[in-house]
Amino acid sequence: MPYVNIKITKEGEVTADQKRQLIEGATNLLHDVLGKNKKTTVVTIDEVDTDNWGIGGVPVTEIRKRQG
Amino acid sequence: MPYVNIKITKEGEVTADQKRQLIEGATNLLHDVLGKNKKTTVVTIDEVDTDNWGIGGVPVTEIRKRQG
Amino acid sequence: MPYVNIKITKEGEVTADQKRQLIEGATNLLHDVLGKNKKTTVVTIDEVDTDNWGIGGVPVTEIRKRQG
Amino acid sequence: MPYVNIKITKEGEVTADQKRQLIEGATNLLHDVLGKNKKTTVVTIDEVDTDNWGIGGVPVTEIRKRQG
Amino acid sequence: MPYVNIKITKEGEVTADQKRQLIEGATNLLHDVLGKNKKTTVVTIDEVDTDNWGIGGVPVTEIRKRQG
Amino acid sequence: MPYVNIKITKEGEVTADQKRQLIEGATNLLHDVLGKNKKTTVVTIDEVDTDNWGIGGVPVTEIRKRQG
Repeated sequence: MPYVNIKITKEGEVTADQKRQLIEGATNLLHDVLGKNKKTTVVTIDEVDTDNWGIGGVPVTEIRKRQG
Repeated sequence: MPYVNIKITKEGEVTADQKRQLIEGATNLLHDVLGKNKKTTVVTIDEVDTDNWGIGGVPVTEIRKRQG
Repeated sequence: MPYVNIKITKEGEVTADQKRQLIEGATNLLHDVLGKNKKTTVVTIDEVDTDNWGIGGVPVTEIRKRQG
Repeated sequence: MPYVNIKITKEGEVTADQKRQLIEGATNLLHDVLGKNKKTTVVTIDEVDTDNWGIGGVPVTEIRKRQG
Repeated sequence: MPYVNIKITKEGEVTADQKRQLIEGATNLLHDVLGKNKKTTVVTIDEVDTDNWGIGGVPVTEIRKRQG
Repeated sequence: MPYVNIKITKEGEVTADQKRQLIEGATNLLHDVLGKNKKTTVVTIDEVDTDNWGIGGVPVTEIRKRQG
Protein backbone atom coordinates (compact mmCIF):
# COMPACT_ATOMS: atom_id res chain seq x y z
CA MET A 1 0.00 0.00 0.00
CA PRO A 2 2.60 2.58 -1.04
CA TYR A 3 1.84 6.24 -1.55
CA VAL A 4 3.73 8.10 -4.27
CA ASN A 5 3.63 11.86 -4.79
CA ILE A 6 5.06 13.26 -8.01
CA LYS A 7 5.69 16.98 -8.30
CA ILE A 8 6.39 18.47 -11.72
CA THR A 9 6.49 21.97 -13.08
CA LYS A 10 3.44 23.11 -15.04
CA GLU A 11 5.02 23.65 -18.47
CA GLY A 12 3.45 22.86 -21.80
CA GLU A 13 0.48 20.55 -21.56
CA VAL A 14 0.72 17.32 -19.66
CA THR A 15 -2.02 15.16 -21.15
CA ALA A 16 -4.37 12.87 -19.23
CA ASP A 17 -2.69 9.97 -21.00
CA GLN A 18 0.78 11.01 -19.82
CA LYS A 19 -0.57 11.26 -16.27
CA ARG A 20 -2.03 7.78 -16.67
CA GLN A 21 1.41 6.54 -17.71
CA LEU A 22 2.99 8.11 -14.61
CA ILE A 23 0.36 6.53 -12.34
CA GLU A 24 0.69 3.13 -13.99
CA GLY A 25 4.49 3.30 -14.13
CA ALA A 26 4.94 4.27 -10.48
CA THR A 27 2.49 1.56 -9.40
CA ASN A 28 4.33 -1.08 -11.46
CA LEU A 29 7.70 0.09 -10.11
CA LEU A 30 6.65 -0.50 -6.49
CA HIS A 31 5.23 -3.87 -7.48
CA ASP A 32 8.29 -4.99 -9.43
CA VAL A 33 10.92 -3.87 -6.92
CA LEU A 34 9.16 -4.59 -3.62
CA GLY A 35 6.23 -6.84 -4.50
CA LYS A 36 3.75 -4.21 -3.28
CA ASN A 37 0.05 -4.77 -3.89
CA LYS A 38 -0.99 -2.68 -6.90
CA LYS A 39 -4.62 -2.46 -5.77
CA THR A 40 -3.83 -0.28 -2.76
CA THR A 41 -1.02 1.78 -4.28
CA VAL A 42 -1.96 5.46 -4.47
CA VAL A 43 -0.25 8.00 -6.74
CA THR A 44 -0.87 11.75 -6.76
CA ILE A 45 0.59 14.29 -9.18
CA ASP A 46 1.11 17.97 -8.29
CA GLU A 47 1.67 20.44 -11.11
CA VAL A 48 3.50 23.48 -9.79
CA ASP A 49 3.64 26.87 -11.50
CA THR A 50 7.15 27.75 -12.72
CA ASP A 51 7.10 30.89 -10.53
CA ASN A 52 6.61 28.60 -7.53
CA TRP A 53 9.49 26.20 -8.21
CA GLY A 54 13.13 27.09 -7.79
CA ILE A 55 16.43 25.31 -8.16
CA GLY A 56 19.83 26.81 -7.46
CA GLY A 57 18.05 29.74 -5.80
CA VAL A 58 16.38 30.80 -9.07
CA PRO A 59 12.72 30.37 -10.12
CA VAL A 60 12.19 28.04 -13.08
CA THR A 61 10.44 30.92 -14.89
CA GLU A 62 13.78 32.77 -14.99
CA ILE A 63 15.77 29.65 -15.87
CA ARG A 64 13.53 29.04 -18.88
CA LYS A 65 13.94 32.67 -20.06
CA ARG A 66 17.73 32.37 -19.93
CA GLN A 67 17.53 29.06 -21.80
CA GLY A 68 15.15 30.61 -24.31
CA MET B 1 0.89 21.79 17.64
CA PRO B 2 0.04 19.06 15.15
CA TYR B 3 -0.05 19.60 11.42
CA VAL B 4 -2.64 17.68 9.40
CA ASN B 5 -2.77 17.54 5.60
CA ILE B 6 -5.88 16.12 3.96
CA LYS B 7 -5.80 15.25 0.27
CA ILE B 8 -9.07 14.57 -1.52
CA THR B 9 -10.06 14.26 -5.14
CA LYS B 10 -11.80 17.28 -6.66
CA GLU B 11 -15.19 15.77 -7.47
CA GLY B 12 -18.52 17.51 -7.15
CA GLU B 13 -18.40 20.62 -5.00
CA VAL B 14 -16.88 20.53 -1.57
CA THR B 15 -18.46 23.46 0.22
CA ALA B 16 -16.71 25.90 2.56
CA ASP B 17 -18.83 24.47 5.35
CA GLN B 18 -17.69 20.89 4.66
CA LYS B 19 -14.08 22.11 4.71
CA ARG B 20 -14.79 23.82 8.03
CA GLN B 21 -16.07 20.50 9.37
CA LEU B 22 -12.89 18.73 8.24
CA ILE B 23 -10.71 21.39 9.89
CA GLU B 24 -12.70 21.33 13.11
CA GLY B 25 -12.96 17.54 13.17
CA ALA B 26 -9.25 16.93 12.62
CA THR B 27 -8.37 19.49 15.28
CA ASN B 28 -10.75 17.90 17.77
CA LEU B 29 -9.41 14.44 16.98
CA LEU B 30 -5.85 15.40 17.89
CA HIS B 31 -7.11 17.07 21.05
CA ASP B 32 -9.30 14.15 22.12
CA VAL B 33 -6.78 11.37 21.44
CA LEU B 34 -3.51 13.06 22.42
CA GLY B 35 -4.50 16.17 24.36
CA LYS B 36 -2.92 18.43 21.72
CA ASN B 37 -3.45 22.18 21.97
CA LYS B 38 -6.18 23.18 19.52
CA LYS B 39 -4.91 26.75 19.19
CA THR B 40 -1.72 25.74 17.40
CA THR B 41 -3.12 22.84 15.37
CA VAL B 42 -2.89 23.55 11.63
CA VAL B 43 -4.96 21.73 8.99
CA THR B 44 -4.56 22.10 5.22
CA ILE B 45 -6.76 20.56 2.53
CA ASP B 46 -5.53 19.76 -1.00
CA GLU B 47 -8.10 19.13 -3.71
CA VAL B 48 -6.54 17.05 -6.46
CA ASP B 49 -7.89 16.74 -10.01
CA THR B 50 -9.15 13.21 -10.78
CA ASP B 51 -6.64 12.99 -13.67
CA ASN B 52 -3.87 13.53 -11.11
CA TRP B 53 -4.90 10.84 -8.62
CA GLY B 54 -4.53 7.14 -9.22
CA ILE B 55 -5.21 3.98 -7.30
CA GLY B 56 -4.48 0.46 -8.50
CA GLY B 57 -2.48 1.98 -11.35
CA VAL B 58 -5.55 3.69 -12.85
CA PRO B 59 -6.50 7.40 -12.77
CA VAL B 60 -9.66 8.18 -10.79
CA THR B 61 -11.10 9.78 -13.94
CA GLU B 62 -11.15 6.35 -15.58
CA ILE B 63 -12.40 4.59 -12.46
CA ARG B 64 -15.37 6.95 -12.32
CA LYS B 65 -16.17 6.33 -16.01
CA ARG B 66 -16.22 2.57 -15.45
CA GLN B 67 -18.41 3.04 -12.39
CA GLY B 68 -20.61 5.45 -14.31
CA MET C 1 -9.94 7.58 -1.46
CA PRO C 2 -8.54 10.38 0.67
CA TYR C 3 -4.99 10.51 1.96
CA VAL C 4 -4.40 12.06 5.38
CA ASN C 5 -0.97 12.82 6.84
CA ILE C 6 -0.76 13.69 10.53
CA LYS C 7 2.45 15.20 11.89
CA ILE C 8 2.96 15.36 15.65
CA THR C 9 5.93 16.01 17.88
CA LYS C 10 7.56 12.98 19.45
CA GLU C 11 6.91 13.72 23.13
CA GLY C 12 6.11 11.15 25.78
CA GLU C 13 4.91 7.86 24.37
CA VAL C 14 2.17 7.71 21.79
CA THR C 15 0.79 4.21 22.09
CA ALA C 16 -0.22 1.91 19.25
CA ASP C 17 -3.79 2.24 20.48
CA GLN C 18 -3.70 6.05 20.30
CA LYS C 19 -2.37 5.79 16.75
CA ARG C 20 -5.20 3.39 15.95
CA GLN C 21 -7.67 5.98 17.25
CA LEU C 22 -6.12 8.68 15.04
CA ILE C 23 -6.31 6.40 11.98
CA GLU C 24 -9.89 5.38 12.71
CA GLY C 25 -10.97 8.91 13.60
CA ALA C 26 -9.51 10.53 10.50
CA THR C 27 -11.05 7.83 8.30
CA ASN C 28 -14.46 8.29 9.92
CA LEU C 29 -14.20 12.07 9.58
CA LEU C 30 -13.73 11.89 5.83
CA HIS C 31 -16.60 9.42 5.57
CA ASP C 32 -18.97 11.45 7.74
CA VAL C 33 -18.30 14.85 6.15
CA LEU C 34 -17.78 13.90 2.51
CA GLY C 35 -19.09 10.35 2.18
CA LYS C 36 -15.63 9.06 1.25
CA ASN C 37 -15.07 5.31 0.98
CA LYS C 38 -13.38 4.12 4.18
CA LYS C 39 -11.81 1.10 2.48
CA THR C 40 -9.46 3.18 0.34
CA THR C 41 -8.73 5.95 2.85
CA VAL C 42 -5.05 6.01 3.80
CA VAL C 43 -3.69 7.69 6.94
CA THR C 44 -0.02 8.10 7.82
CA ILE C 45 1.42 9.51 11.05
CA ASP C 46 4.84 11.20 11.28
CA GLU C 47 6.41 11.63 14.71
CA VAL C 48 8.90 14.50 14.60
CA ASP C 49 11.69 15.09 17.13
CA THR C 50 11.15 18.26 19.18
CA ASP C 51 14.49 19.63 17.90
CA ASN C 52 13.09 19.35 14.37
CA TRP C 53 9.81 21.20 14.95
CA GLY C 54 9.56 24.93 15.48
CA ILE C 55 6.78 27.42 16.01
CA GLY C 56 7.23 31.16 16.38
CA GLY C 57 10.83 30.72 15.23
CA VAL C 58 11.72 28.59 18.28
CA PRO C 59 12.30 24.81 18.46
CA VAL C 60 9.73 22.92 20.56
CA THR C 61 12.61 21.59 22.69
CA GLU C 62 13.25 25.16 23.91
CA ILE C 63 9.56 25.94 24.31
CA ARG C 64 9.14 22.90 26.57
CA LYS C 65 12.15 23.96 28.71
CA ARG C 66 10.67 27.43 29.21
CA GLN C 67 7.33 25.88 30.09
CA GLY C 68 9.07 23.41 32.42
CA MET D 1 20.66 18.88 -2.08
CA PRO D 2 17.93 19.99 0.32
CA TYR D 3 14.27 20.18 -0.61
CA VAL D 4 12.17 22.95 0.92
CA ASN D 5 8.39 23.20 0.65
CA ILE D 6 6.74 26.45 1.70
CA LYS D 7 2.97 26.54 2.17
CA ILE D 8 1.25 29.91 2.46
CA THR D 9 -2.34 31.05 2.30
CA LYS D 10 -3.47 32.62 -0.95
CA GLU D 11 -4.30 36.13 0.24
CA GLY D 12 -3.66 39.33 -1.66
CA GLU D 13 -1.22 38.94 -4.51
CA VAL D 14 2.12 37.31 -3.96
CA THR D 15 4.28 38.62 -6.79
CA ALA D 16 6.77 36.64 -8.85
CA ASP D 17 9.49 38.78 -7.28
CA GLN D 18 8.39 37.88 -3.74
CA LYS D 19 8.41 34.20 -4.71
CA ARG D 20 11.91 34.68 -6.11
CA GLN D 21 12.96 36.16 -2.75
CA LEU D 22 11.53 33.13 -0.90
CA ILE D 23 13.35 30.72 -3.22
CA GLU D 24 16.63 32.63 -2.96
CA GLY D 25 16.31 33.14 0.79
CA ALA D 26 15.55 29.50 1.59
CA THR D 27 18.42 28.35 -0.64
CA ASN D 28 20.84 30.76 1.05
CA LEU D 29 19.63 29.68 4.50
CA LEU D 30 20.49 26.03 3.87
CA HIS D 31 23.86 27.07 2.47
CA ASP D 32 24.71 29.42 5.32
CA VAL D 33 23.65 27.12 8.18
CA LEU D 34 24.66 23.71 6.81
CA GLY D 35 26.96 24.42 3.86
CA LYS D 36 24.50 22.78 1.45
CA ASN D 37 25.17 23.05 -2.29
CA LYS D 38 22.92 25.80 -3.71
CA LYS D 39 22.92 24.29 -7.21
CA THR D 40 20.91 21.23 -6.19
CA THR D 41 18.65 22.89 -3.61
CA VAL D 42 15.00 22.74 -4.67
CA VAL D 43 12.26 25.00 -3.28
CA THR D 44 8.55 24.70 -4.03
CA ILE D 45 5.80 27.08 -2.92
CA ASP D 46 2.17 26.01 -2.42
CA GLU D 47 -0.49 28.72 -2.24
CA VAL D 48 -3.51 27.38 -0.36
CA ASP D 49 -7.02 28.86 -0.53
CA THR D 50 -8.10 30.38 2.81
CA ASP D 51 -11.08 27.98 2.89
CA ASN D 52 -8.60 25.10 2.80
CA TRP D 53 -6.35 26.25 5.67
CA GLY D 54 -7.35 26.14 9.31
CA ILE D 55 -5.73 26.96 12.60
CA GLY D 56 -7.32 26.51 16.00
CA GLY D 57 -10.07 24.49 14.32
CA VAL D 58 -11.27 27.48 12.28
CA PRO D 59 -10.76 28.19 8.54
CA VAL D 60 -8.59 31.23 7.78
CA THR D 61 -11.51 32.65 5.76
CA GLU D 62 -13.49 32.98 9.01
CA ILE D 63 -10.51 34.25 10.99
CA ARG D 64 -10.00 37.06 8.46
CA LYS D 65 -13.71 38.02 8.64
CA ARG D 66 -13.56 38.31 12.43
CA GLN D 67 -10.37 40.37 12.14
CA GLY D 68 -11.91 42.50 9.38
CA MET E 1 13.39 18.78 -12.36
CA PRO E 2 10.67 16.64 -10.82
CA TYR E 3 10.50 15.71 -7.17
CA VAL E 4 9.14 12.27 -6.26
CA ASN E 5 8.34 11.12 -2.73
CA ILE E 6 7.69 7.42 -2.15
CA LYS E 7 6.16 6.31 1.13
CA ILE E 8 6.22 2.62 2.01
CA THR E 9 5.58 0.67 5.18
CA LYS E 10 8.64 -0.54 7.08
CA GLU E 11 8.18 -4.30 6.80
CA GLY E 12 10.95 -6.83 6.32
CA GLU E 13 14.17 -5.34 5.11
CA VAL E 14 14.25 -3.05 2.13
CA THR E 15 17.82 -3.26 0.87
CA ALA E 16 19.98 -0.39 -0.34
CA ASP E 17 19.87 -2.00 -3.77
CA GLN E 18 16.06 -2.05 -3.82
CA LYS E 19 16.04 1.62 -2.86
CA ARG E 20 18.49 2.28 -5.69
CA GLN E 21 16.07 0.55 -8.08
CA LEU E 22 13.19 2.74 -6.86
CA ILE E 23 15.27 5.90 -7.30
CA GLU E 24 16.48 4.88 -10.75
CA GLY E 25 13.05 3.64 -11.84
CA ALA E 26 11.19 6.78 -10.77
CA THR E 27 13.80 8.98 -12.44
CA ASN E 28 13.56 6.99 -15.68
CA LEU E 29 9.76 7.10 -15.57
CA LEU E 30 9.69 10.90 -15.49
CA HIS E 31 12.25 11.00 -18.29
CA ASP E 32 10.46 8.47 -20.48
CA VAL E 33 6.93 9.89 -20.08
CA LEU E 34 7.64 13.62 -19.94
CA GLY E 35 11.22 14.04 -21.16
CA LYS E 36 12.30 15.42 -17.77
CA ASN E 37 16.01 15.99 -17.14
CA LYS E 38 17.33 13.08 -15.08
CA LYS E 39 20.16 15.14 -13.60
CA THR E 40 17.88 17.34 -11.55
CA THR E 41 15.23 14.76 -10.65
CA VAL E 42 15.09 14.19 -6.89
CA VAL E 43 13.57 11.09 -5.26
CA THR E 44 13.07 10.56 -1.53
CA ILE E 45 11.81 7.42 0.19
CA ASP E 46 10.02 7.43 3.57
CA GLU E 47 9.74 4.17 5.48
CA VAL E 48 6.78 4.33 7.84
CA ASP E 49 6.25 2.07 10.86
CA THR E 50 3.22 -0.24 10.44
CA ASP E 51 1.67 1.29 13.58
CA ASN E 52 1.77 4.67 11.83
CA TRP E 53 0.09 3.65 8.57
CA GLY E 54 -3.59 2.84 8.26
CA ILE E 55 -5.93 1.87 5.48
CA GLY E 56 -9.66 1.29 5.84
CA GLY E 57 -9.44 2.82 9.32
CA VAL E 58 -7.16 0.04 10.59
CA PRO E 59 -3.39 0.16 11.31
CA VAL E 60 -1.28 -2.06 9.03
CA THR E 61 0.07 -3.79 12.16
CA GLU E 62 -3.42 -5.17 12.81
CA ILE E 63 -4.05 -5.99 9.16
CA ARG E 64 -0.86 -8.06 9.07
CA LYS E 65 -1.89 -9.95 12.25
CA ARG E 66 -5.25 -10.85 10.74
CA GLN E 67 -3.52 -11.97 7.54
CA GLY E 68 -0.92 -13.87 9.57
CA MET F 1 0.62 31.21 9.38
CA PRO F 2 2.97 29.61 6.89
CA TYR F 3 4.14 26.01 7.11
CA VAL F 4 7.68 25.21 5.97
CA ASN F 5 9.07 21.69 5.58
CA ILE F 6 12.82 21.30 5.12
CA LYS F 7 14.20 17.95 3.98
CA ILE F 8 17.94 17.32 4.24
CA THR F 9 20.11 14.25 3.99
CA LYS F 10 21.31 12.77 7.27
CA GLU F 11 25.06 13.25 6.90
CA GLY F 12 27.46 14.17 9.66
CA GLU F 13 25.76 15.60 12.71
CA VAL F 14 23.28 18.42 12.40
CA THR F 15 23.29 20.04 15.84
CA ALA F 16 20.26 21.27 17.76
CA ASP F 17 21.66 24.79 17.33
CA GLN F 18 21.85 24.46 13.55
CA LYS F 19 18.26 23.24 13.52
CA ARG F 20 17.33 26.26 15.63
CA GLN F 21 18.98 28.50 13.04
CA LEU F 22 16.99 26.85 10.23
CA ILE F 23 13.73 27.28 12.15
CA GLU F 24 14.49 30.91 13.02
CA GLY F 25 15.79 31.71 9.53
CA ALA F 26 12.81 30.25 7.70
CA THR F 27 10.40 32.03 10.05
CA ASN F 28 12.19 35.35 9.54
CA LEU F 29 12.23 34.84 5.76
CA LEU F 30 8.44 34.51 5.58
CA HIS F 31 8.08 37.54 7.83
CA ASP F 32 10.52 39.71 5.89
CA VAL F 33 9.26 38.87 2.38
CA LEU F 34 5.51 38.54 2.98
CA GLY F 35 4.89 40.08 6.40
CA LYS F 36 3.69 36.74 7.78
CA ASN F 37 3.02 36.45 11.51
CA LYS F 38 6.00 34.74 13.15
CA LYS F 39 3.93 33.43 16.06
CA THR F 40 1.95 31.00 13.92
CA THR F 41 4.69 30.02 11.48
CA VAL F 42 5.51 26.32 11.76
CA VAL F 43 8.75 24.74 10.52
CA THR F 44 9.53 21.03 10.43
CA ILE F 45 12.82 19.40 9.47
CA ASP F 46 13.10 15.87 8.03
CA GLU F 47 16.48 14.16 8.05
CA VAL F 48 16.58 11.50 5.36
CA ASP F 49 19.05 8.59 5.20
CA THR F 50 21.42 8.86 2.23
CA ASP F 51 20.17 5.47 0.96
CA ASN F 52 16.67 7.00 0.78
CA TRP F 53 17.56 10.13 -1.21
CA GLY F 54 18.49 10.12 -4.87
CA ILE F 55 19.37 12.70 -7.46
CA GLY F 56 20.12 11.99 -11.11
CA GLY F 57 18.79 8.47 -10.57
CA VAL F 58 21.57 7.63 -8.08
CA PRO F 59 21.34 7.30 -4.27
CA VAL F 60 23.32 9.92 -2.33
CA THR F 61 25.20 7.07 -0.61
CA GLU F 62 26.75 6.16 -3.97
CA ILE F 63 27.36 9.78 -4.95
CA ARG F 64 29.32 10.32 -1.74
CA LYS F 65 31.43 7.19 -2.36
CA ARG F 66 32.36 8.41 -5.83
CA GLN F 67 33.22 11.83 -4.41
CA GLY F 68 35.20 10.22 -1.60
